[in-house]
Amino acid sequence: MAALPVLAYSNPMKDILAYIDGNLDASLNRLFELLRIPSISAQKSHAVDCRAAALWARDTLTEMGFTARLSETTGLPGVIAQHHAAGPHTPHVLFYGHYDVQPADPLNLWHADPFDPQIIDGPRGKRIVARGAVDDKGQVVSFFEACRAHLAVTGTLPVRLTILLEGEEECGSPSLAELLTNERETLAADFVLVADTNMWNFETPAITTSLRGLAAVEVTITGPSRDLHSGLYGGIALNPINALTRILGDLQDDQGGIRIPGFYDGVAPLAPALAASWKQLGFNPEAFLGDVGLKNPAGEHGQSPLAQLWARPTAEINGIFGGYQGDGTKTVIPSEATAKLTFRLVPGQDPKKVIENFERFVNDRLRPDAKASFKSYGASPGFAVSLDAPFMRAAQQAMADEFGKPAALVGCGASIPVVEAFKTHIGLDTLLAGFGLDDDAIHSPNEKFEVACFHRGARTHARLLQAFAG
Amino acid sequence: MAALPVLAYSNPMKDILAYIDGNLDASLNRLFELLRIPSISAQKSHAVDCRAAALWARDTLTEMGFTARLSETTGLPGVIAQHHAAGPHTPHVLFYGHYDVQPADPLNLWHADPFDPQIIDGPRGKRIVARGAVDDKGQVVSFFEACRAHLAVTGTLPVRLTILLEGEEECGSPSLAELLTNERETLAADFVLVADTNMWNFETPAITTSLRGLAAVEVTITGPSRDLHSGLYGGIALNPINALTRILGDLQDDQGGIRIPGFYDGVAPLAPALAASWKQLGFNPEAFLGDVGLKNPAGEHGQSPLAQLWARPTAEINGIFGGYQGDGTKTVIPSEATAKLTFRLVPGQDPKKVIENFERFVNDRLRPDAKASFKSYGASPGFAVSLDAPFMRAAQQAMADEFGKPAALVGCGASIPVVEAFKTHIGLDTLLAGFGLDDDAIHSPNEKFEVACFHRGARTHARLLQAFAG
Repeated sequence: MAALPVLAYSNPMKDILAYIDGNLDASLNRLFELLRIPSISAQKSHAVDCRAAALWARDTLTEMGFTARLSETTGLPGVIAQHHAAGPHTPHVLFYGHYDVQPADPLNLWHADPFDPQIIDGPRGKRIVARGAVDDKGQVVSFFEACRAHLAVTGTLPVRLTILLEGEEECGSPSLAELLTNERETLAADFVLVADTNMWNFETPAITTSLRGLAAVEVTITGPSRDLHSGLYGGIALNPINALTRILGDLQDDQGGIRIPGFYDGVAPLAPALAASWKQLGFNPEAFLGDVGLKNPAGEHGQSPLAQLWARPTAEINGIFGGYQGDGTKTVIPSEATAKLTFRLVPGQDPKKVIENFERFVNDRLRPDAKASFKSYGASPGFAVSLDAPFMRAAQQAMADEFGKPAALVGCGASIPVVEAFKTHIGLDTLLAGFGLDDDAIHSPNEKFEVACFHRGARTHARLLQAFAG
Repeated sequence: MAALPVLAYSNPMKDILAYIDGNLDASLNRLFELLRIPSISAQKSHAVDCRAAALWARDTLTEMGFTARLSETTGLPGVIAQHHAAGPHTPHVLFYGHYDVQPADPLNLWHADPFDPQIIDGPRGKRIVARGAVDDKGQVVSFFEACRAHLAVTGTLPVRLTILLEGEEECGSPSLAELLTNERETLAADFVLVADTNMWNFETPAITTSLRGLAAVEVTITGPSRDLHSGLYGGIALNPINALTRILGDLQDDQGGIRIPGFYDGVAPLAPALAASWKQLGFNPEAFLGDVGLKNPAGEHGQSPLAQLWARPTAEINGIFGGYQGDGTKTVIPSEATAKLTFRLVPGQDPKKVIENFERFVNDRLRPDAKASFKSYGASPGFAVSLDAPFMRAAQQAMADEFGKPAALVGCGASIPVVEAFKTHIGLDTLLAGFGLDDDAIHSPNEKFEVACFHRGARTHARLLQAFAG
C-alpha cells in the first residue's frame, strides 16, 4: 500500500467518519482476509495459522504506519504495534484485542465453512458470519479501520497508541502474564481500551464499569475415621454431612445477606450515578429469570436485581458431596463430606480476608470431633473504574455523540481475566467498550457480527481516539 | 437312629444338662455334618448345597421325633418341623434360624477350607472354625441339641415347639414373606425365639429387648431449569445447594435434638429397669468411639451414650450431592441438589408420620423458586419387647440360672429384618437370645464359634424350653 494521503479539513472528525462510511466495503474485505485464517489457539494443528494471523496483523499495522512486531512467548506470540507521533504530551492509550478464535465445532451446525466468511441478510440488515466475526477479529478490525481513517484524513493519530494483540485468549491466556511482564515498558500506557464486550442493545452502546472478583475455596468436614453403619453408630457418632449442612446452612440470613463476620468489610453502597444509570436500562428481571425457570431475585433484600447481579458479593455453593449417591438408600455415616464454594467479590473486599473469614466461620461452628480442612483455588478482587476518570468521561461523550444517547453504564457479575491481568501485571485500569450483541453466538456455530455494529464500532472508535486527546 | 430311651428322674433338668455335657463330642460331630455342606444362598451354583442343608435339617429333626418337611417357595425352601406332644395348654414356641451361609471369599485368608470345619485352640479354649460356625449353623445345632437332650431324658419337650429354618437369610430373605404367609397357620405360635445374636461378653448372656426402626427418604431441591454460570447469575438466581443446606442445617438443635415438629411424638422415656440394666453393662463410650476416631457422644444432650445408640431416634444424612464434584473449582449454580436421609426410629414413632413431618419441615423452609421432590424408600417401626412378657421373664430366669448372673438387657440401634417380618406377617414378638461373641468374625474369613459358647448355648436353650413351660 502506498503512503496514505493527508487531507487537512477544518472539521477532521466529520471527514474521518465520512472516510469510514465511504470505505466500508474495503474495511470488510480486510476483515475477511483475517477471518479466513483459522487461528484456533486451542488446537496445536492450527499453531501455524495462529502465527499467520499474528503476521497479518503486524503487516497490516506496519502498512498503516505503525511500528509493529511480534513479541514471542513460550506459547503463541503477541503482536505489538505503536504509533506515537502525537507526542509525549498526549495520553497514551493501550488497545487490547486477540487474534485467536474458538474451535469451530460442531461443524455440521454451520450453514457455511466457518473460515469462509459470508455476508448474509438478517433482521437488522447485513451480517458477517464466520468464526471470529465478532470475537474478536471483527472488533479488532473495526478499531484498525478507525485508526486508518484518522491516518488517512489527518496523517496522524490524536493520541499515542500502543496496540497489543494476544494469541491465546480463547485457551485461557497461559502466556499473557509473561507477555505483559516482558513488555512492561512498551505497554506503560495511561489505560487500556478493550474491545471484546457487547453493547446494551442494538441501539445503545455500553461501557462496563465494574466486574466482580472471585475467591474459590473447598471445605471438607471429617468425622469418623471410616464409614460407619448408621444402625450401629447412629446417634452417638458425629455425622459429617449433618455437620457440614449445619455450618453451610448458616451462610445466609433471612434477608439474603451473607452471615460470615467481616464479609462486607469495605463494600461501598452503590454510587448514585450508577444507580440512576441502571434504572434507565429497563432491565427486566422477570424475563431474565424466567428464561431459566425462576421468578424471584434471590439476593439481598433491599438491593435491586441489577445490584444483586453486578454490585453485591455472593457466597455460592457450587458443589457438594459426601456419603452414598447411588440409587435407593444406604444406612451409612460417611467419614467425610465436602463442599466447593465461590465468593463473587466487589471492590473493597480483600479476597484473602474473605477466605480467612470463611475458614473462621467454619471453624467457629465445628461440633466436637468434626475437623475441617480447606483448599483454596485462587482469588481475584473486584474491579471498578471511576466514572470520573478522564478516559471514562471521554468515552461517554464519544459514544453519546455517535449514538445520540448516553452509553449504558453496566456492570458484569463475572470476572474478565485480561482486566485482572492488566491491573496485576502493569497496574492499568481498563475501559471495556465493545460492539457485539448478546445474540452474536460467540463460541457457537454461525457466529455473526452485524455489519451495522462493525461500522458503528469503527465510527465510535474514531471518536474515542479523538475524545481521549481531550 | 433308634427310638430314644425315656429316663424318668426327679430332677429332669439336671439330667438334661448332664446329657448335653456328656454328649458334647457327638453334638459337635452333628454340627460338623452341617458345616461341611457349602449352603451359600447368594450363589446360584450352590443351590443344590442349600437344598442338601435343608434336607439334613429335615432328616435330623425327623429322627429326633419331629414332624418335619420342606416348605417350598419361589426361592430356596424353608424347613418346618413340629413337636407338639406337650399338649395344647403349653406355650407354643416358634424357633427361627437359617441354614444358609455367607460366601466364603476371600478364600486365601482362611487358614483351612471354610467347609472343612476345624477345632483349634484359642484364648478361651477350643473353638470351631468354619463358614457358618456361629452364623447360624452353630446356633441352630446348639438349639437342636437342647431339644435332643430333653427328648432323650424325658421322652418329650416341655412346650409345643415349631422350628422354622430359612434358606435365604444371607441374601436378603427375598422369599421370607412368602414363606411366612404360606405357613401362617403352622407358625401361629405365642412368640418367636431367634438364636442369631450375640452375648454381651464371654461371661454374660444377653437378650436384645429393642431394635430401632428405619424410615428412608430422599429430597431433591430444584432451582433454575438448567445449570447457570455463577458470574452471570450469582446473587439473583436461587442456588439449590445453598437452599438444601439451609434446610438440612436446621435439622438439629444445639442440644443434638431433632427439630422436625412432631418428630418425638410417641417417644417414651427410657424405662427405669432398662436404664438400670444398661448402667450395669460397663459400656465404655470412649473405647467404642475411639475405635472409629471419635471422642464425644454426638446425640441428644442429657441422654446416656447407650440411650443415644439404642433408645433415641436419629436423623442422619447418608448422602448428599449436587453441582461440581471434580478437582478444582467450577463457577456453576446447579439446577438441583439432593440428599438421602434415614431416620432411626424407636417404638411409639409412626414411620409414615415421620416422613410426612420431614416433608412438611422441608416445604415450610422452601425459599421462593425452590421446589422440593421426595422419594421414600420404605419404613419400619421400632420394636421393643416388654420386660414383663412371660417369655421374657422366663428367659431372664433361665439365663441367670445357667450363667449365675442376670442376662444383659441390651438394645440394638439397627433393625433386624426377620424380627420385623415376624411382626408384620404373623403378628409375633421375638425373643432375641443368641450365644455368639463380637469377635466371631461372622461374614469374614475364619469365622469361629467358641466350643464353650456352643455348649452353654445348648444348656441355656434346654433351660429356656423348660422355663417357657412356666
